[in-house]
Amino acid sequence: MKILIIGGSGTIGKKVAAAFAHKHELIIAGRNSGDINVDISSAASIKGMFELTGKVDACICTAGTGYYGPFETMTQEHVLPGIGNKLIGQINLVLIGKDYLNEGGSFTLTSGIAAQHPAKNGACVAMINGAVNSFALAAAQELKQDKRINVVSPGLVEDSKDRYGAFFPGYNLVPMSKLVNAYILSVEGAVNGRILKVYS
Amino acid sequence: MKILIIGGSGTIGKKVAAAFAHKHELIIAGRNSGDINVDISSAASIKGMFELTGKVDACICTAGTGYYGPFETMTQEHVLPGIGNKLIGQINLVLIGKDYLNEGGSFTLTSGIAAQHPAKNGACVAMINGAVNSFALAAAQELKQDKRINVVSPGLVEDSKDRYGAFFPGYNLVPMSKLVNAYILSVEGAVNGRILKVYS
Repeated sequence: MKILIIGGSGTIGKKVAAAFAHKHELIIAGRNSGDINVDISSAASIKGMFELTGKVDACICTAGTGYYGPFETMTQEHVLPGIGNKLIGQINLVLIGKDYLNEGGSFTLTSGIAAQHPAKNGACVAMINGAVNSFALAAAQELKQDKRINVVSPGLVEDSKDRYGAFFPGYNLVPMSKLVNAYILSVEGAVNGRILKVYS
Repeated sequence: MKILIIGGSGTIGKKVAAAFAHKHELIIAGRNSGDINVDISSAASIKGMFELTGKVDACICTAGTGYYGPFETMTQEHVLPGIGNKLIGQINLVLIGKDYLNEGGSFTLTSGIAAQHPAKNGACVAMINGAVNSFALAAAQELKQDKRINVVSPGLVEDSKDRYGAFFPGYNLVPMSKLVNAYILSVEGAVNGRILKVYS
């Protein structure tokens, strides 16, 4: 399979790429690294990326960020960048990328545990993750030619403990191998329209 | 209680208002009707509305729309208006309105069945509804002074059968009295952080 991994140089993306590398052809895209540069907050940039890749069998997105911060002082200025990036960015990957996906190909988006179990200061990210989940449920019904879409919803992954652990008191650490398996299930399995929750 | 109902002239809002009218002080806000005009897609308009109402005990939003249409030709241009309106609009109602809510007061937002059971052509609305649900879960943890927030998630309400029924084949009609009860439960009950699903 020819697999495009957007965010493939990030904490999760790197491990996902490593898991697929031995038996698939990989193209890594990222904002500032990888084989192709892409800014998923720009529809034109996404379109340009797919023009470079040509048709692919799987498109995985592990990129996208959103605001973490105090609810008391949160305004739409905090919320809008994440909406443009992790939310509209991932939606555009599907709306634009479906024409670059081979028959039977798959999208795998990334949301997160906040959709269901938001941490303190996580209202913006919760909102984005909930949106990505529900979008994928709908998109799974609409895609043609046996194309599939799933969302991986990670909890606090063990590799992010030092960087993010302090923001998630009481959240179980997720073994990276379990998280990577969810991406493998989405790409190589037959599941469609699933929110693959890897919370512990 | 002093209750602000945004969208209080709409199909659902009218019935919600009627249910509260006999024992509460109501302020109806709407884009083109009601006691106060408000465009929830504008933070400034929301701020202006709350400056007119002063402090309220409950803020209910039944306003907000999003795109229904073919997935095949959907682009971000179709998606963005609903994000600005039903999604960011309702988020701003909370982020701005929390300072105009009395101690122990409540927000009641409106999402919809599409978050969980999207209809054909409903990917945009599904996404918005999922976002509103998850935002409320997070906001419920963050609000101070015993303020509460819930979301009512309606299915296809019987009063909308003629207008929208054709878009929801196989969806059960929801009796309006059951839907109105969910708003009453949110406002007059003690529930917090609940997605009140009224699907049939």
